Amino acid sequence: MQRTKVKDLLQGAEVDKEVLLKGWVRTKRGNKFVNFIAVNDGSTINNLQVVAEAEKFNEETLKDVTTGAAIAVTGKLVASQGKGQAYEVQATSIEVLGKADPETYPLQKKAHSLEFLREIAHLRFRTNTFGAVFRVRNTLSFAVHKFFNEKGFVYMHTPIITASDAEGAGEMFRVTTLDLDNLPRTEEGQINFEEDFFGRSTNLTVSGQMEGEVAAMAFSDIYTFGPTFRAENSNTTRHLAEFWMIEPEMAFYDLKMNADLAEEFIKYIIRYALENNREDLEFLAQRQAEEDKSKPQNERQEMTLIEKLESVVNNDFERITYTEAIDILLNSNHYKKKKFQYDVKWGIDLQSEHERYLVEKHFKKPVIVTDYPKDIKAFYMRMNDDGKTVAAMDILAPGIGEIVGGSQREERMDILVERMKSVGIEPEAMWWFLDTRRFGGCPHAGFGLGFERVVQFVTGMGNIRDVIPFPRTPQNAEF
Amino acid sequence: MQRTKVKDLLQGAEVDKEVLLKGWVRTKRGNKFVNFIAVNDGSTINNLQVVAEAEKFNEETLKDVTTGAAIAVTGKLVASQGKGQAYEVQATSIEVLGKADPETYPLQKKAHSLEFLREIAHLRFRTNTFGAVFRVRNTLSFAVHKFFNEKGFVYMHTPIITASDAEGAGEMFRVTTLDLDNLPRTEEGQINFEEDFFGRSTNLTVSGQMEGEVAAMAFSDIYTFGPTFRAENSNTTRHLAEFWMIEPEMAFYDLKMNADLAEEFIKYIIRYALENNREDLEFLAQRQAEEDKSKPQNERQEMTLIEKLESVVNNDFERITYTEAIDILLNSNHYKKKKFQYDVKWGIDLQSEHERYLVEKHFKKPVIVTDYPKDIKAFYMRMNDDGKTVAAMDILAPGIGEIVGGSQREERMDILVERMKSVGIEPEAMWWFLDTRRFGGCPHAGFGLGFERVVQFVTGMGNIRDVIPFPRTPQNAEF
Repeated sequence: MQRTKVKDLLQGAEVDKEVLLKGWVRTKRGNKFVNFIAVNDGSTINNLQVVAEAEKFNEETLKDVTTGAAIAVTGKLVASQGKGQAYEVQATSIEVLGKADPETYPLQKKAHSLEFLREIAHLRFRTNTFGAVFRVRNTLSFAVHKFFNEKGFVYMHTPIITASDAEGAGEMFRVTTLDLDNLPRTEEGQINFEEDFFGRSTNLTVSGQMEGEVAAMAFSDIYTFGPTFRAENSNTTRHLAEFWMIEPEMAFYDLKMNADLAEEFIKYIIRYALENNREDLEFLAQRQAEEDKSKPQNERQEMTLIEKLESVVNNDFERITYTEAIDILLNSNHYKKKKFQYDVKWGIDLQSEHERYLVEKHFKKPVIVTDYPKDIKAFYMRMNDDGKTVAAMDILAPGIGEIVGGSQREERMDILVERMKSVGIEPEAMWWFLDTRRFGGCPHAGFGLGFERVVQFVTGMGNIRDVIPFPRTPQNAEF
Repeated sequence: MQRTKVKDLLQGAEVDKEVLLKGWVRTKRGNKFVNFIAVNDGSTINNLQVVAEAEKFNEETLKDVTTGAAIAVTGKLVASQGKGQAYEVQATSIEVLGKADPETYPLQKKAHSLEFLREIAHLRFRTNTFGAVFRVRNTLSFAVHKFFNEKGFVYMHTPIITASDAEGAGEMFRVTTLDLDNLPRTEEGQINFEEDFFGRSTNLTVSGQMEGEVAAMAFSDIYTFGPTFRAENSNTTRHLAEFWMIEPEMAFYDLKMNADLAEEFIKYIIRYALENNREDLEFLAQRQAEEDKSKPQNERQEMTLIEKLESVVNNDFERITYTEAIDILLNSNHYKKKKFQYDVKWGIDLQSEHERYLVEKHFKKPVIVTDYPKDIKAFYMRMNDDGKTVAAMDILAPGIGEIVGGSQREERMDILVERMKSVGIEPEAMWWFLDTRRFGGCPHAGFGLGFERVVQFVTGMGNIRDVIPFPRTPQNAEF
């Protein structure tokens, strides 16, 4: 007999038939005549209720049916008389496949803190919250691929181990097979990386952008979706040492087309989650609402999670230039009352408090800020005609800050080389990157989106460590 | 005016209308009256022919329209009078967006060797062969996600940086932020990894299986699709230091269900490529046929690439046990004539020559070999009742060898711990992995599939370096 998943059973797939159900016990309650066993198999946030009449079963078997145990149940799927579920299974047989000793199994009925669950990240998938979070993450991942596939983008697996560190996006992790207890040295006494695995010094990638640009000069439209790394000692709720990024690169795109694509993309994947994970998102919305109750009034969400997501999907993002953003900040009561901690003037890198003001107080929706001062942006961003700003764009989202950073790329060889030199990058070391400008270059653009930031935004989880299966942060590489 | 992609134009999307076309020049030929410019934009292997009457254009512009240059063309899309294409564009304007100096641009009309193109991996995407290979790779990637999504599997991003090396699948790369010129030492003079970024010694993952198993014990069915690493000094056509793996793990699966899933999966993604990349695959089939002509008769393919793929999709895989495989080999004329280099007897690890004999000579189709001797397989594979073999399976494919390795996992705590100890793994270090057996364990199974091997199989490319954008191999981390 073939097993049917809980998700299908709850939709009445096999009603009034004998079914085989397999999953893990969430709760067992009842009396000496009948047991009600809630079984979850991860296919949905909802449990299926198994009704087991005590007289039909061995007492020993029922004793082993405890929270966390894996069981197989056969029985008839029937419309439920009880409240809270449409269908239930009247068990005719129960097999305990794996016990979970109630004395030692860490996930008992009571609610556990997110901090505690992080310590047992290998078991937290079995809770309602993390079940929902990772089903939503799965849906968003699929939506990413579906979106780009429908548009004819080519998915590129750009390299993880790299010898280039040209972007200078942050501190890097060294990758080596050298014996640290016996490092090879050159005649001058330097470590001899020629003897390392790749014959040179290598790191973990901070971005696949440059390899992506190269590929876009052949396929027109490409995207990456892979892990990237920052060896920064940041212990915040928004930083990970290992995280997943999505980086599309498009030949023949200017900044406006880039922003249009990013907006369409974000709306698409959120809409896809709303359509495919409604129950998970409703649970997470309720979780967030509960969490809010313990917060001071001014830190609470103004909208429910679902309202927030629907608002993003149904409204145009605001689009302003950096210069306009500075003007808005300077003209705000917030500024006049000296409520910003950091000063505001043209040329500053927008601080989190500035971004939040723009997004959460002023516009109350996602904002695309474009045309930043060249001195605070990367060398590869296209110089605007004013000579002061570059064709950059950041997308800022309520409650989360920057989720997209992108730009039109500098396609003009002479300007690009000059910019590289001005930030201390040897053009020769990037010969292959420059070849894209040397041979058949063209206007092009792209952006990067931190996937975990998006998952945070969609699930309402406050800590980025709670939206990646096994977070990697300073001092933590468990599991 | 919006640009239309070549793929759409070649399907007559805008026939008899004015269109805007952007892409790269593949060839230009003609005479003093008319130029025929073949333009490719990566959306398809086919070029669009642009007809440019000399009198309508500036001579200087046409001079810059050379192989590799990026151009934008407006003109009328019309049914073509010439052979070889259904539609062509009669140009009214041509803009050269980026030149490609014929003196220095490396990709001229002549055919280039795959070895030479590996040296310019950043430009090889612009050739017919690599355009086709990476479009097929893209399609296969999407098919992987589509397959598992349709089956309700949850995609897990298992960690890339890991502190565990329990599987012992091979040599690992160290990941560190320690200053190699100034390594911190403990009082005993050992390198003090407590001062490393993660507070311990860390490596790049060789497999996401164990984290995957953990997740399967909550979601029932999960899969990974991410980069994995081997620091092995193997310079072969089948090995990379960095490659992508797909690793599904399924709760409540036994070995037969595991094999059924793997077979269905392989057929699904190949069928998807046949349906969606027919032209690319036909080109690659022809390329392989050409390549074969320079090989000795006995090394040539017996089927064309398309025939081979269709045969895989349309026929059941053969299923035999390891013991049966040994019997077949021992009874073969090949063995009797002493044509195997390595000896055959029960207990050996099957060599490539043995696998090829089974697949290419004996069965002439993919073969699933199950139930290998326990001593040649990993500790986590489920012990069979005979006490000698484990519930392992390898899928062997013609021309490529092993593409899948999997097993039913050992769910019985006592046997698993004993097996761990026997191979020198500390059970304590794997506490979280063992928790999956301690709490609600169940029969489960999974497999791993090397993605590049599959891309090699589907594209017919002989060298694995030619199916990943930027290969990482000993002494090579360029780009």
